[in-house]
Amino acid sequence: MRDFISMKDFTKGEILRILKLAKSLKENPQGNLLGDKIVSSLFFEPSTRTRLSFTSAAYRVGAKVLGFDSPDATSLKKGESLRDTIKMTGAYSDVIVMRHPIDGAARFATEVSNVPIINGGDGANEHPSQTLLDLYTIQEEMGKIENLKIAFVGDLKYGRTVHSLSKALSMFNCEFYFVAPDLIQIPEHILKFLNNRNIKYTLVDDYKDILPEIDVMYMTRIQRERFENLDEYEKVKTVYEIDKNSIVGKCKEEMIILHPLPRVTEINIDLDDTKHALYFKQAANGVPVREAMYAIALGKYHLDEDEMDVEKRDSISAHEEIQCKNNRCITQIEKTRNKVLEENGIKYCYYCGREIK
Amino acid sequence: MRDFISMKDFTKGEILRILKLAKSLKENPQGNLLGDKIVSSLFFEPSTRTRLSFTSAAYRVGAKVLGFDSPDATSLKKGESLRDTIKMTGAYSDVIVMRHPIDGAARFATEVSNVPIINGGDGANEHPSQTLLDLYTIQEEMGKIENLKIAFVGDLKYGRTVHSLSKALSMFNCEFYFVAPDLIQIPEHILKFLNNRNIKYTLVDDYKDILPEIDVMYMTRIQRERFENLDEYEKVKTVYEIDKNSIVGKCKEEMIILHPLPRVTEINIDLDDTKHALYFKQAANGVPVREAMYAIALGKYHLDEDEMDVEKRDSISAHEEIQCKNNRCITQIEKTRNKVLEENGIKYCYYCGREIK
Amino acid sequence: MRDFISMKDFTKGEILRILKLAKSLKENPQGNLLGDKIVSSLFFEPSTRTRLSFTSAAYRVGAKVLGFDSPDATSLKKGESLRDTIKMTGAYSDVIVMRHPIDGAARFATEVSNVPIINGGDGANEHPSQTLLDLYTIQEEMGKIENLKIAFVGDLKYGRTVHSLSKALSMFNCEFYFVAPDLIQIPEHILKFLNNRNIKYTLVDDYKDILPEIDVMYMTRIQRERFENLDEYEKVKTVYEIDKNSIVGKCKEEMIILHPLPRVTEINIDLDDTKHALYFKQAANGVPVREAMYAIALGKYHLDEDEMDVEKRDSISAHEEIQCKNNRCITQIEKTRNKVLEENGIKYCYYCGREIK
Repeated sequence: MRDFISMKDFTKGEILRILKLAKSLKENPQGNLLGDKIVSSLFFEPSTRTRLSFTSAAYRVGAKVLGFDSPDATSLKKGESLRDTIKMTGAYSDVIVMRHPIDGAARFATEVSNVPIINGGDGANEHPSQTLLDLYTIQEEMGKIENLKIAFVGDLKYGRTVHSLSKALSMFNCEFYFVAPDLIQIPEHILKFLNNRNIKYTLVDDYKDILPEIDVMYMTRIQRERFENLDEYEKVKTVYEIDKNSIVGKCKEEMIILHPLPRVTEINIDLDDTKHALYFKQAANGVPVREAMYAIALGKYHLDEDEMDVEKRDSISAHEEIQCKNNRCITQIEKTRNKVLEENGIKYCYYCGREIK
Repeated sequence: MRDFISMKDFTKGEILRILKLAKSLKENPQGNLLGDKIVSSLFFEPSTRTRLSFTSAAYRVGAKVLGFDSPDATSLKKGESLRDTIKMTGAYSDVIVMRHPIDGAARFATEVSNVPIINGGDGANEHPSQTLLDLYTIQEEMGKIENLKIAFVGDLKYGRTVHSLSKALSMFNCEFYFVAPDLIQIPEHILKFLNNRNIKYTLVDDYKDILPEIDVMYMTRIQRERFENLDEYEKVKTVYEIDKNSIVGKCKEEMIILHPLPRVTEINIDLDDTKHALYFKQAANGVPVREAMYAIALGKYHLDEDEMDVEKRDSISAHEEIQCKNNRCITQIEKTRNKVLEENGIKYCYYCGREIK
Repeated sequence: MRDFISMKDFTKGEILRILKLAKSLKENPQGNLLGDKIVSSLFFEPSTRTRLSFTSAAYRVGAKVLGFDSPDATSLKKGESLRDTIKMTGAYSDVIVMRHPIDGAARFATEVSNVPIINGGDGANEHPSQTLLDLYTIQEEMGKIENLKIAFVGDLKYGRTVHSLSKALSMFNCEFYFVAPDLIQIPEHILKFLNNRNIKYTLVDDYKDILPEIDVMYMTRIQRERFENLDEYEKVKTVYEIDKNSIVGKCKEEMIILHPLPRVTEINIDLDDTKHALYFKQAANGVPVREAMYAIALGKYHLDEDEMDVEKRDSISAHEEIQCKNNRCITQIEKTRNKVLEENGIKYCYYCGREIK
């Protein structure tokens, strides 16, 4: 039994073994791997893509799925705590996939659950299956993950996906370009993280100059609601839209375009039929990756425990007196043990991952 | 692989073979026919009956089902196009059943999907599984489809069901009575269609005179929202309500009453226990008919391609310059190739089927 | 085939055999018991816990599940009657589990359905699977059901769960304490029922004096919306909250605390890790109990018909002239036969169970 809460919980060796298992399941489907198991799919916040992908993955390894796709039809309306919902659902199933709007909800769930928890996204915090499928697609298409030049384009400030993927790629010595207007550029704490690991990166506000250099172009959606000034939104939106004309023939032959989807206008559909367009295949790769996650969560496949980052785990400690200040943190809502994670002398909330000042 | 978008795509021979396959599946259930397949059930518009019937059919041939039952919990809210939703879902499943409020949505889906599409109703346009189960029930109960006298009663103007079934029955040389008040009588384009095929029909505003003649009485619901004048609605509503007293002993012994359901007051429940009441059996027949559709869509059974109306298909062509004028057509929303279908010198939109003037 | 509508339909012997079957299914899972069957799960009113538990139970005996989790996405919006929804759904499945806000809806459904009905709660009336899992848990934990002292605490006036369980326990000669403020004390008709069976009971407004005596403490949630005066609610709420401090060491060693869940504040989470806290195990027991219900409903296991209370059944008769006065009764909504049940000279509505005066 193993939970999937954050990429931080996995070493480089473990990540590579997860991707290898996913590849094996993609090439040799195992329809009876989890034949007698039941998956709880708890979406406290709607997310069709993630939900259907996890369901498809469950079916493909022979599991059954129950749950809810939005909180409207749940006992939450009667005031039930996440604690009790998780305890109850654990009695009805063998593994829980959960999506929740509150940061740290998934980590908290592991403390009260009798069955493994797979985090399908907890607020602005973590979404490990997305990062794993991104890594999987890069490895499958580029033949490796190491030493690539990767541009992240669009909303880099709020994009949980970008934060998580860039941290994970830092294990593989990749070099980054962060392409965004100042307002939504990559946050300082990510840069600090990369600095600590001696990762090369460059911040730019246009992709044109760097386009010939990069191996992977990771596009993200710019959300109107992030902008106070709508004129600025309209200006920025256009700058970060790509199409056939702006890409084909101007980038490396083998450059791939990724996107966590859904896209709106940032990738023109005229790119869809080009060889660079990998975003739909990327979404499809979510299925074998999630099959692998189920297999590991339910103990059908064991990651080598030797490589676990035991030191980091040992540094976790409960400090009753330290309360995380993040208003969107589960510690503000549920009774937890206020655990703190220390790294390089800095304290982070064990649940939501935010620095505690 | 074969899509089910419109009855127009099937020849008479093909229709009969679909019904035969449905009969065979009803009599000899094949629980493992699609054992390793996944059905996407995408209801962009709620429809319990159609959805549950397609799900039951999938289960009965051994398939698994994922999807959504209303658009509330989907990425559509984030602005995702139908194009991308279909592409994504195709990666998670082997066949897509879709219900959509926009005319032509299903046809458009076939152009972007990697997996077969089954139309579970697209706006006011087509709902082929309903027509097939209507035909199935008529054949099973009357022993034939040819040369029957069929009365359509109620809302004939807006009833997609009536339009589609009357066109399909025209292949079988049936004779029609269209029983409705002027305001909601059968539209001119259906009559033109029947005229072109030399089909006999009569328009009446009361069923009493024709009741002794008919073999099938196809009832439909009169929807209040169609009427600007509620007094008129109340008057009309009562005229087109039938009950035991108005039917039994006044029609042929073997006459059957059909209804696409849900009914409200147009068929009194005192008729439910009479031998004429076939509407619940008709709904039940939706299950084997949809099993057959899955089997054909997924290539487990092949319709004889010789009989395909190849000529009609060849006449489809993309005219970039011709834009369909139907405000509810998918061509107004998604980027399509504006294809046009020509028949007897008239141009129809390939997607929504409306005449392009 | 056997319906599960009300505990009244089962003799003591039958109840014990249901619990025995549940125990057997818990100890020896039978994943293929209902392998080819389809369950309709119709939640006309949301209830996550009950729904997921019935779904989990179906999966564990090999059945498939279709249906809806709230009425929002159903044809009910088009005005479809419960009668027709049940008839339709029966055509798509082998057994129907239904939750409905109207009293008597489940009993009515048995009259129009071709497949067995399992009542997952009908308004304020009955919820037999809850009572069965309560009995199951008591038997499993205490080793017996007979001759126990049981305290019901909290909202005893509106709590369907309490009414049903106390009646069922009266077959086992248990003694009751009803612990509640006057405003929400146990209703007169329950006391009359117990009096008729010579059951000992005591009404108190605090649990402290009786705590050392009792074997089972059955807690319930006090709902704010029951109170006109919110000050009174706040006062009462606190009185009926228990925690580690108020319970541990002050009750019998083997006393168990039950709760139908969801709880809000009436049981402090500091009790969760004590041996008295049985409420999560109680919820988990819902799964094997519901497996047993499916097995019996679908004729895989037969309760001994000899023990059926045939006399009671014979006393049911249709009195067209007697209309139940309960505004929330299904007889006010659907066309029924207005059946009446007579017991000890008192007339009860056959559907909603209310006395007809």
